[in-house]
Amino acid sequence: MIIQLNNTITKADYAKVEKVLAENKFSVTEVKTQFDRYLVCIGKKEIDIRSLGHLAGVKDVHIVSDNYQLVSRKWKTEYTKIHLGDGIIIGGKTPVVMAGPCSIESEEQVVKVAQHLHKNNIKIMRGGVYKPRSSPYAFRGTGIEGLKMMYSICKPYGIKIITEVMQESQIKEMLPYVDIFQVGARNSQNFNLLDALGEVDKPVMIKRGLSGTIEELLFSAEYIFSKGNERLLLCERGIRTFETAYRNTFDINALQVLKDKTHLPVIADPSHGVGVRSYVPKLTLSSLMSGCDGVIYEVHEKPEESFSDGQQTLNFLESEELIKKINTVLQIL
Amino acid sequence: MIIQLNNTITKADYAKVEKVLAENKFSVTEVKTQFDRYLVCIGKKEIDIRSLGHLAGVKDVHIVSDNYQLVSRKWKTEYTKIHLGDGIIIGGKTPVVMAGPCSIESEEQVVKVAQHLHKNNIKIMRGGVYKPRSSPYAFRGTGIEGLKMMYSICKPYGIKIITEVMQESQIKEMLPYVDIFQVGARNSQNFNLLDALGEVDKPVMIKRGLSGTIEELLFSAEYIFSKGNERLLLCERGIRTFETAYRNTFDINALQVLKDKTHLPVIADPSHGVGVRSYVPKLTLSSLMSGCDGVIYEVHEKPEESFSDGQQTLNFLESEELIKKINTVLQIL
Amino acid sequence: MIIQLNNTITKADYAKVEKVLAENKFSVTEVKTQFDRYLVCIGKKEIDIRSLGHLAGVKDVHIVSDNYQLVSRKWKTEYTKIHLGDGIIIGGKTPVVMAGPCSIESEEQVVKVAQHLHKNNIKIMRGGVYKPRSSPYAFRGTGIEGLKMMYSICKPYGIKIITEVMQESQIKEMLPYVDIFQVGARNSQNFNLLDALGEVDKPVMIKRGLSGTIEELLFSAEYIFSKGNERLLLCERGIRTFETAYRNTFDINALQVLKDKTHLPVIADPSHGVGVRSYVPKLTLSSLMSGCDGVIYEVHEKPEESFSDGQQTLNFLESEELIKKINTVLQIL
Amino acid sequence: MIIQLNNTITKADYAKVEKVLAENKFSVTEVKTQFDRYLVCIGKKEIDIRSLGHLAGVKDVHIVSDNYQLVSRKWKTEYTKIHLGDGIIIGGKTPVVMAGPCSIESEEQVVKVAQHLHKNNIKIMRGGVYKPRSSPYAFRGTGIEGLKMMYSICKPYGIKIITEVMQESQIKEMLPYVDIFQVGARNSQNFNLLDALGEVDKPVMIKRGLSGTIEELLFSAEYIFSKGNERLLLCERGIRTFETAYRNTFDINALQVLKDKTHLPVIADPSHGVGVRSYVPKLTLSSLMSGCDGVIYEVHEKPEESFSDGQQTLNFLESEELIKKINTVLQIL
Repeated sequence: MIIQLNNTITKADYAKVEKVLAENKFSVTEVKTQFDRYLVCIGKKEIDIRSLGHLAGVKDVHIVSDNYQLVSRKWKTEYTKIHLGDGIIIGGKTPVVMAGPCSIESEEQVVKVAQHLHKNNIKIMRGGVYKPRSSPYAFRGTGIEGLKMMYSICKPYGIKIITEVMQESQIKEMLPYVDIFQVGARNSQNFNLLDALGEVDKPVMIKRGLSGTIEELLFSAEYIFSKGNERLLLCERGIRTFETAYRNTFDINALQVLKDKTHLPVIADPSHGVGVRSYVPKLTLSSLMSGCDGVIYEVHEKPEESFSDGQQTLNFLESEELIKKINTVLQIL
Repeated sequence: MIIQLNNTITKADYAKVEKVLAENKFSVTEVKTQFDRYLVCIGKKEIDIRSLGHLAGVKDVHIVSDNYQLVSRKWKTEYTKIHLGDGIIIGGKTPVVMAGPCSIESEEQVVKVAQHLHKNNIKIMRGGVYKPRSSPYAFRGTGIEGLKMMYSICKPYGIKIITEVMQESQIKEMLPYVDIFQVGARNSQNFNLLDALGEVDKPVMIKRGLSGTIEELLFSAEYIFSKGNERLLLCERGIRTFETAYRNTFDINALQVLKDKTHLPVIADPSHGVGVRSYVPKLTLSSLMSGCDGVIYEVHEKPEESFSDGQQTLNFLESEELIKKINTVLQIL
Repeated sequence: MIIQLNNTITKADYAKVEKVLAENKFSVTEVKTQFDRYLVCIGKKEIDIRSLGHLAGVKDVHIVSDNYQLVSRKWKTEYTKIHLGDGIIIGGKTPVVMAGPCSIESEEQVVKVAQHLHKNNIKIMRGGVYKPRSSPYAFRGTGIEGLKMMYSICKPYGIKIITEVMQESQIKEMLPYVDIFQVGARNSQNFNLLDALGEVDKPVMIKRGLSGTIEELLFSAEYIFSKGNERLLLCERGIRTFETAYRNTFDINALQVLKDKTHLPVIADPSHGVGVRSYVPKLTLSSLMSGCDGVIYEVHEKPEESFSDGQQTLNFLESEELIKKINTVLQIL
Repeated sequence: MIIQLNNTITKADYAKVEKVLAENKFSVTEVKTQFDRYLVCIGKKEIDIRSLGHLAGVKDVHIVSDNYQLVSRKWKTEYTKIHLGDGIIIGGKTPVVMAGPCSIESEEQVVKVAQHLHKNNIKIMRGGVYKPRSSPYAFRGTGIEGLKMMYSICKPYGIKIITEVMQESQIKEMLPYVDIFQVGARNSQNFNLLDALGEVDKPVMIKRGLSGTIEELLFSAEYIFSKGNERLLLCERGIRTFETAYRNTFDINALQVLKDKTHLPVIADPSHGVGVRSYVPKLTLSSLMSGCDGVIYEVHEKPEESFSDGQQTLNFLESEELIKKINTVLQIL
């Protein structure tokens, strides 16, 4: 059960609400986000919500039958819009496109990508500076300096930045340069990181774990929301199965399930979702057809020379053709 | 390696070819299909294919680096078209739609579906009369009588029939009434059934096994082809994974992989692919966007009263809306 | 619900039982096995079982809360013993060992294995004559002649035979030479084959499907039992997962779950369960430790020369060492 | 390739080694652990290792064909022993037993468990104070105070402590109270945490990820080792599959594979491996039979009242019986 409180609720009124909940043996978590104030109440007792709804300072009361609460669509049927500034909105009528290299490598590389995005009217660049790699001996990213460089190049173009954060200690110095923090698949249940991102007023995109269930992904979002940050995006990027003909099994079903279960925007990552360059464009279009709010794909001037993920990265020509097709598809949606 | 032979090759010339292959230690399988004659040659030795290509009676020689041979696109880059008669073609420019109930239940039911298909210009009806069921106590189909009834209703409308065959002994009596035999997911590696269907001159659609790899599906097709039947379709219908939010995980990646690896037409089954009615339409459109040659979905006048699979079956209204959307999508493809 | 009937129940008494069940809207399946007579009653209505138990001709009535019925341990807490003749029992106090080659290849090969088994006091030989193979071009077995040869060699030693049957049409000619029919993993849900094996009075061992759930395996056994054959064994042989470091993931948990859920004997197949020769012995001992009723493993004089599965087959020396260890383990069980 | 250096190597000699490696285009990682000094050299060029082996300051040179290097058994065939002090060794001849509650809850609870362990001669207590939970509203542990309390109780008994660390910032304050840090399944690829644990001179046990491959687990260990900490244990705790009859699929094959691939000790966690209390004891014995170096299981005075994981936790009586059986099994190993 979620109780929405007026931001102006008095201490006395708050105490009254608490009292009723305690009497009914609810375990209560107080949540203050950048937008609103909530009490998340977990309990077994059935309660007449009218007995709460009429209390002073209470805006609304919602019974949510899901295990997760704040991210559920059961209490908030209107979908959440994420405003990035400059009129860029995720979760609005038109799906967004985010694109960029797997790793931020060099100034020249980022300039080229920024020009490519700008030319094709793409407003959000992806690009990793902290790279989670299976092997400790692999390239692990250019770090905060890479991010600053990326920022200085993107800024003049009005291009927003999404990049992965790997641990709490990185958040503070990344903050000025990031428009969307990305939580990677391997950190999808790194609960300390999620907690910390709940205290930031920047959007966060959470990738589904390699074998994360849809419910686990929603709970990961619930972690961040319940710590105070409502500006969340969820990302399907393929799951691990027995099939070895490609890198990951893109779970296209998940897109519709998520749109059903949560009010948060849902993003598809076709590059990781299949892991093979030639399959990325059609998979992107299929994802849009299943109703996602945006796509994020990898692009690089010379994929074959990129430091990581080259086999699933489009070159500029392929990217341009894809964008045209995306626009055609958006017209019939 | 595949050697295509002239149908008119003389015994003497054939013997010469055999001799060269034996000298090079190839294990040879002779294949005669309704269309052509082949030798499938498995061996480790490198051979100069010109030494074979110039032999009398040899039409062409192809090195195929895949483990499967005849179904590979390595030797036959032109995609296979399946002609069902009356101008109905699978694998041509326009993807086909197949629809119908999970199970054939009653005359009234089939008449209603036939009228629905006819009205919406759908030319192929699906409908099971032999039903593989996990429990022996569940409804197991109306059998051959159901099929005859289905046939007598569909015939006047010019509607073709696709239905599942479960074992060799059923083939003969089903033959006159079937336009496409379907091999179900649970029989995807029932090699005796596959062998037997190789001796039939009717198209066969093979469904991917519950946890069948893409390569295994191709090998199942190779079984039928190598016994003499080239008229084959492959069907992606969802695989088994850890996720429980829906029935099966539709492997949309498989559609593109299959179009890459084989010249055979590829069909998507969104009904089994997700198993939830409200998700079927978008999944159908997504599948078309990934380049499949057709879709097969379940439709019933009253899904909630159907004997099986009601939860994933569209009603007529939903089906009609879907067909309109399919047509819109086909225009931009 | 299962109603056990007296074999001598009169027609009139039977009709009375049927009447009560019909009044209570049960769907009833009559089952006559080699041992007993049952009515399997599927329905939603709660019924006072005493109203059935006192009817003439009724031996006993059992409520079974599982979806499967006859194979459930809910009505038959005593474990089933399978008598193979000559005092050989599966499901008794002492786990049994079955061993032999993957494929029956030659007389010499079988003689050697028979001598090896005889010397080590192993009473059951495995050996395939019909081989399900992913590729149609692979060795597919020596067929019925191979089985006859195997029989003539094993008979003098008193060694029993377990071998795979792939389709109904093979049953009749295999019958005189087989002590246990094996249903392979790929045929685990070949329901026509299961039905046909229900009409045979020979034990049947059903292997779990590649991605078959434990419940599906139990339902496959229910198919055979409900057609009349109670003499069933279940076999865990590894499932398909994302891991590629070995052939299959042996589901050791399944052994205990099965012993909990069903009264049928449970066999472990460590050879397929891991697929790597050097890991087979310890996996065998681990399986015994988890309470299985027997193990079946692959042995060959020269595994590296065997026609199939050589990489997971023990040689005679390894097999002999394993048998000694098995005997040590059996002492502490 | 791994080059073992003398700890006393001079700067000049070191420079010479570096020069040869640079000439051969190796990418070199210098590793100093609590015990030894290594150069991990990744490159494509074949090099005659004698040209390195004779250089001053070089102790030994090993070609390692695995992708991971330092944790591979290819260069260190002798298994690693982890000394915890007071004669307690993991990885020696006798497998160790670790047991304790899922969560540290109260002083009374820990005292009871400590007495139980002491009485049964178990020297290592498990117990979580930082609990990764899918839901943010679940009990998340008693934190550092819980750990201090646990320490003060265990200390007099000479009982060592293994407990989970969830992020880098916790390490410092946990350090004095912990004998083995545990990295949980959800953090198995939290590379920042792994890096940080490389700088600690305390043993670390890494749990396999929910869908982590065996190779990924080895790479996670390689992360820690290459940052300076050789005292590592690996733990198999069940993987995520399609089966829902129990909590996780215990991958018993992984135990033997790991003993084959790495010199590090391998621990089995049967409690999480199956997730059902009644199956834990036999699974423990099966694990020992497959050659693991130790087991870790959950025990609590009153499992049904425990804050977490009660359904898979043994009570004291069950634990005592299990320990007796373990001792019997250890005698025959």
